[in-house]
Amino acid sequence: MSRYRLVIEYDGTNYCGWQRQKNGVSVQEKVENAIYSAFGVQTVVTGSGRTDAGVHAAAQVAHFDAQLTIPPRKIREALNGYLPQDIKIVCSQAAKEDFHARFSAKQKTYQYTYYLSETERPLLSRYAARAKRPVNLSAMQAALQTVVGVHDFAAFSSTGSSVKDTVREIYAASLTYSPFSAASAKGDSAVGEPQAEVFNGTLTLTVTGNGFLYNMVRIIAGTLLAVGEGTLSASAFEQAFQGKKRTILGKTAPAAGLTLLSVVYEIK
Amino acid sequence: MSRYRLVIEYDGTNYCGWQRQKNGVSVQEKVENAIYSAFGVQTVVTGSGRTDAGVHAAAQVAHFDAQLTIPPRKIREALNGYLPQDIKIVCSQAAKEDFHARFSAKQKTYQYTYYLSETERPLLSRYAARAKRPVNLSAMQAALQTVVGVHDFAAFSSTGSSVKDTVREIYAASLTYSPFSAASAKGDSAVGEPQAEVFNGTLTLTVTGNGFLYNMVRIIAGTLLAVGEGTLSASAFEQAFQGKKRTILGKTAPAAGLTLLSVVYEIK
Repeated sequence: MSRYRLVIEYDGTNYCGWQRQKNGVSVQEKVENAIYSAFGVQTVVTGSGRTDAGVHAAAQVAHFDAQLTIPPRKIREALNGYLPQDIKIVCSQAAKEDFHARFSAKQKTYQYTYYLSETERPLLSRYAARAKRPVNLSAMQAALQTVVGVHDFAAFSSTGSSVKDTVREIYAASLTYSPFSAASAKGDSAVGEPQAEVFNGTLTLTVTGNGFLYNMVRIIAGTLLAVGEGTLSASAFEQAFQGKKRTILGKTAPAAGLTLLSVVYEIK
Repeated sequence: MSRYRLVIEYDGTNYCGWQRQKNGVSVQEKVENAIYSAFGVQTVVTGSGRTDAGVHAAAQVAHFDAQLTIPPRKIREALNGYLPQDIKIVCSQAAKEDFHARFSAKQKTYQYTYYLSETERPLLSRYAARAKRPVNLSAMQAALQTVVGVHDFAAFSSTGSSVKDTVREIYAASLTYSPFSAASAKGDSAVGEPQAEVFNGTLTLTVTGNGFLYNMVRIIAGTLLAVGEGTLSASAFEQAFQGKKRTILGKTAPAAGLTLLSVVYEIK
């Protein structure tokens, strides 16, 4: 038996998430079915972690065990022939027998994107959530830095989670604003607003950490937006580390804005 | 009777194009239906031009006539409530009675995007076509400049087109390359290749002109790719202006890569 490692890119819009479920089509199921179709092998594909319904991945990592005669690098093409357009293997290789996509993961990076617009934007809404009001960018950036470091993220998980150890380390977090190009800019620009207020553009949040609780990135994103819109104070994250209450934080931001960017197994 | 002007953004993936057709759902039909649902008015919505099946628009412009009591600016929200997520009005306003979305248009800008990748990329393929081989960027840029100016684009239209005047002016054309970010870069990088060769990134073609024949931008894009891959000479465009034969040019590039960026009615 050999172990293989896959890097998978998917548009999660039409799926119930990574993990197999009774109701709904999962990405995991599609990949397992492709392995069966290509090689006649029934096997479990283990991902680096779950992604929720509607969440995307630029580079989900997974492993599976099988005895295949095809060179590991060629597995990619063989599976892609059986995968739908919104799920593709971008890399396949042999893995060591003790490699585990979930337990060996050292670091993950997620990206959350908002678009700030008076109107819905069909060309943006598949991969970004809409924010309807101008936001104070510097307030958001300041608040975001308070999540960097080792913290107890107990408040940052949807209720009902059974995880016991809620301490995680965030290695880096950034928030960048990019205005819509002149050609596609819509609506009124924020003339006369203080300079820190931004609108008509995209906000990209990138967070790297040693692990993330269920919905943690979406709760960070939702809280950050509330800080930017002025409905939560910039100390909301710090209060939540102390108070450990979900209610201190903002809404769970919509799934469409979230993308798993990368999973790292060896810290250089 | 008043005339109204709409700016419409749509993801064309699931439509047979802008124009109403017997077989297939069109964007025009969806907008006309929304007007009927919102205001009880049956009217024809005239666009600045057709977009093909699968082609997107960041700012298609259209007009329609009706006698509405709602302020023109509010039409946007009223219609968006009846439009699907992949079609939205981004701006509505009153238009002069002689304004015509198609005949008054002075200038249009289209964008065509390729992604250069060894593998299919689900997070890119909705709005970009895949190119499988490294391309010579400077050769493409040089060839592209030969389309700028006034030319007879007779060769640049799909056969069967009934347009008689095939002379058009291209005001500007540019091609830019943007490498995939480190986090999402896939496949082998083109180490050791001549510097003009690029791969693992996106190529964005932007073309502005006074008008475009049917499929003209997609044929320019397809020809440009063939020049970049070395299967057509950099003089292909010039040869086609002289020879007027469709066969001198490259393939019609896939619809998904094309977006109507803007339509201009008053040249400043």
